[in-house]
Amino acid sequence: MKAEILSIGTELLLGQIVDTNAQWLAGELSGHGIDLYFISQVGDNRGRLVETLQRAWNRSELIICSGGLGPTDDDLTREAIGDLLEEKMIVQEPIANALREYFSLRNIIMPEKNIKQAALIPSAEFLDNPIGTAPGWWVSKDGHIIVAMPGVPHEMKQMWENQVVPRLKPLFPPGVILSRTLKILGKGESAVEEMVKDLITSNNPTMATYAKPDGVHLRITAKSADETTARDLIFEMEIKARTILGTLIYGDDDETIEGVVGTMLTDRNLTLGIMEVGTGGMVAALLSEAPNSINFLRGGLVSQQRSMLAGWGVDSNMLEKYGIMSREVAEVMATAARRQTGAEAGLAICVSPGHGEFEGKPAGQIIMAVDLDGHLESSELNYRTKPSEVKRLAAVFSLNLLRRALLK
Amino acid sequence: MKAEILSIGTELLLGQIVDTNAQWLAGELSGHGIDLYFISQVGDNRGRLVETLQRAWNRSELIICSGGLGPTDDDLTREAIGDLLEEKMIVQEPIANALREYFSLRNIIMPEKNIKQAALIPSAEFLDNPIGTAPGWWVSKDGHIIVAMPGVPHEMKQMWENQVVPRLKPLFPPGVILSRTLKILGKGESAVEEMVKDLITSNNPTMATYAKPDGVHLRITAKSADETTARDLIFEMEIKARTILGTLIYGDDDETIEGVVGTMLTDRNLTLGIMEVGTGGMVAALLSEAPNSINFLRGGLVSQQRSMLAGWGVDSNMLEKYGIMSREVAEVMATAARRQTGAEAGLAICVSPGHGEFEGKPAGQIIMAVDLDGHLESSELNYRTKPSEVKRLAAVFSLNLLRRALLK
Repeated sequence: MKAEILSIGTELLLGQIVDTNAQWLAGELSGHGIDLYFISQVGDNRGRLVETLQRAWNRSELIICSGGLGPTDDDLTREAIGDLLEEKMIVQEPIANALREYFSLRNIIMPEKNIKQAALIPSAEFLDNPIGTAPGWWVSKDGHIIVAMPGVPHEMKQMWENQVVPRLKPLFPPGVILSRTLKILGKGESAVEEMVKDLITSNNPTMATYAKPDGVHLRITAKSADETTARDLIFEMEIKARTILGTLIYGDDDETIEGVVGTMLTDRNLTLGIMEVGTGGMVAALLSEAPNSINFLRGGLVSQQRSMLAGWGVDSNMLEKYGIMSREVAEVMATAARRQTGAEAGLAICVSPGHGEFEGKPAGQIIMAVDLDGHLESSELNYRTKPSEVKRLAAVFSLNLLRRALLK
Repeated sequence: MKAEILSIGTELLLGQIVDTNAQWLAGELSGHGIDLYFISQVGDNRGRLVETLQRAWNRSELIICSGGLGPTDDDLTREAIGDLLEEKMIVQEPIANALREYFSLRNIIMPEKNIKQAALIPSAEFLDNPIGTAPGWWVSKDGHIIVAMPGVPHEMKQMWENQVVPRLKPLFPPGVILSRTLKILGKGESAVEEMVKDLITSNNPTMATYAKPDGVHLRITAKSADETTARDLIFEMEIKARTILGTLIYGDDDETIEGVVGTMLTDRNLTLGIMEVGTGGMVAALLSEAPNSINFLRGGLVSQQRSMLAGWGVDSNMLEKYGIMSREVAEVMATAARRQTGAEAGLAICVSPGHGEFEGKPAGQIIMAVDLDGHLESSELNYRTKPSEVKRLAAVFSLNLLRRALLK
């Protein structure tokens, strides 16, 4: 069964709201194994609405609409479905009364406009909406199904779960779809794809790479009649991927780089001190998102000024000789961070985040160093992107440098 | 001119990401008075991509695409446009070399598949992308324009503003729509709306409130035949709004709370030291986004551990007596932050961000204090929301506390 999502409302075309309904519904459909090929947003215009519905009708068996069920003249989803199927809307008295009751409960006289929310076409049945005035429509005709739900997200979600899913269940393909994500730091998306290119050709499970803020995500998705088989399919593929990518993989599914590093530190009974230049404390901020950070994160020191750094134990002669933006100084800073906070591990990061040069290095320069009980590691790279992005990358990469040092 | 937006990427159809690009572009188009009738999301499938482009071509003169410009095999926007116009892609050597350079700068050999990012069809020209590897395409043929931009939001936005808008300008309809945003901290959205309710009824200019991460935004939008009239309309309305809201307004349009505070400090020749508990350095991170932060931001100290705080000059007896999460200690911390960094101003923030209690205060507790040359100000509040949100709010509110202290 092919499905299509239509989000209806002129406010979507004016950019006044972002279409989170479509995203949520798309997730639901893929979770139930229904193929979704198209999502469209269309305004409150009867002609264009019918045109869009007609196209969806021609290429999809299941059309899921949200929005346009309100009482006002520009709520036209019902009318458009009626036009499409050439059926007239008829007011259903019981529902009309329930609607009047809903208003009288609030001591409001129902505006007569609202009566259309109690109307149906012959091919439609109501989808109950206990938390709003607009009931949905379930339309079934000629092997096609049209679902019309309110645009208000929480009304739509409740209607989907309680009214729509039970009706759709018999149409869901048998079996389950499971997916698992492996998270990678240390290589870019195309490099990772290159490494696993032989696996990506697989059909079940499928494998795909995504560039994300916390690295490259490798998603393995398996379809199967039963959960066990799906799990096995994923497991076999995961083994192959891990064999190729090894420690480039820092975590999976809900794991985060800050959480992983936090756990490694906690397991090894290590505390950490951080010194940051040019990130404004982004590394500490990110790491503080990790559970237990209160225990393992001793403290963070943030400045871009040589005098402050010297005050925190960074050798002034080194600053003089190499400048802040050097691996030499970054390593001294890592040690200073460790000593200043009385921690076993020290992490230093020096970033040139601005638009111009900083300490003789171009914008986007990232230098990081780790001092693990005296063992030093450092690395240097450059990213050409906006300052806030450089800082975020620097934070993620420096935590990965620390992770790799802890692996040894 | 009729426009249409296509957002390209299978992750949109799987519900893995929400399509914020379409919303942002829709807002841009309506701001420039261009009619947008359709938005579609389509997956990384060459056939369906061409089908969708063909339909857009048939009904719209301007087709704006984002996504599918990456280097990998499932990035097919260029190929699909080539199919639609029956034109072959040809690699452009100068761009190919620039691309190789970009990689060698980062000491990486460019994966050969990236070369397609340097290819064009005859009807296309490149849209420069200084902050990413994928240049965009500007395609002009038979009275139609196709714009292809990267899916990465900040790359897309910069390309739109610097490359696309200038090329589209001649096509914009006469008459202008101008808008101006006033940014407010210190009152919630409904309170602000209540204060300006008499102004919100106006039709031209219109006025609307939006709850945003950096406070309440009050947007004034005016339509007019000429820019001067539109500006005047906005100006009159802005005066009225400012009369009502006064110093609750911290900035306008592109101004940020960190930028405003940074400018105030710079103008007054003041430097700042920050001490943060429970935010992981969020305040320093935010403030470091301000221009010149390198000059006025002396340093930031981040920890959740009493022993560290004591080491930074926070009186241990006070910590003993009141605990970290108290206005008494926050004020001592503000002074310690000032002294430790040798700054004129000290800002302290103590947050209980976790899910449980911290130092006897419930999750969501935010205590902040400012020491301005010895004058102390502090405040305390509680927000019931997720930890990352609490930290963000704390950072914004503490900068507003500093702003208000600087106003005196």
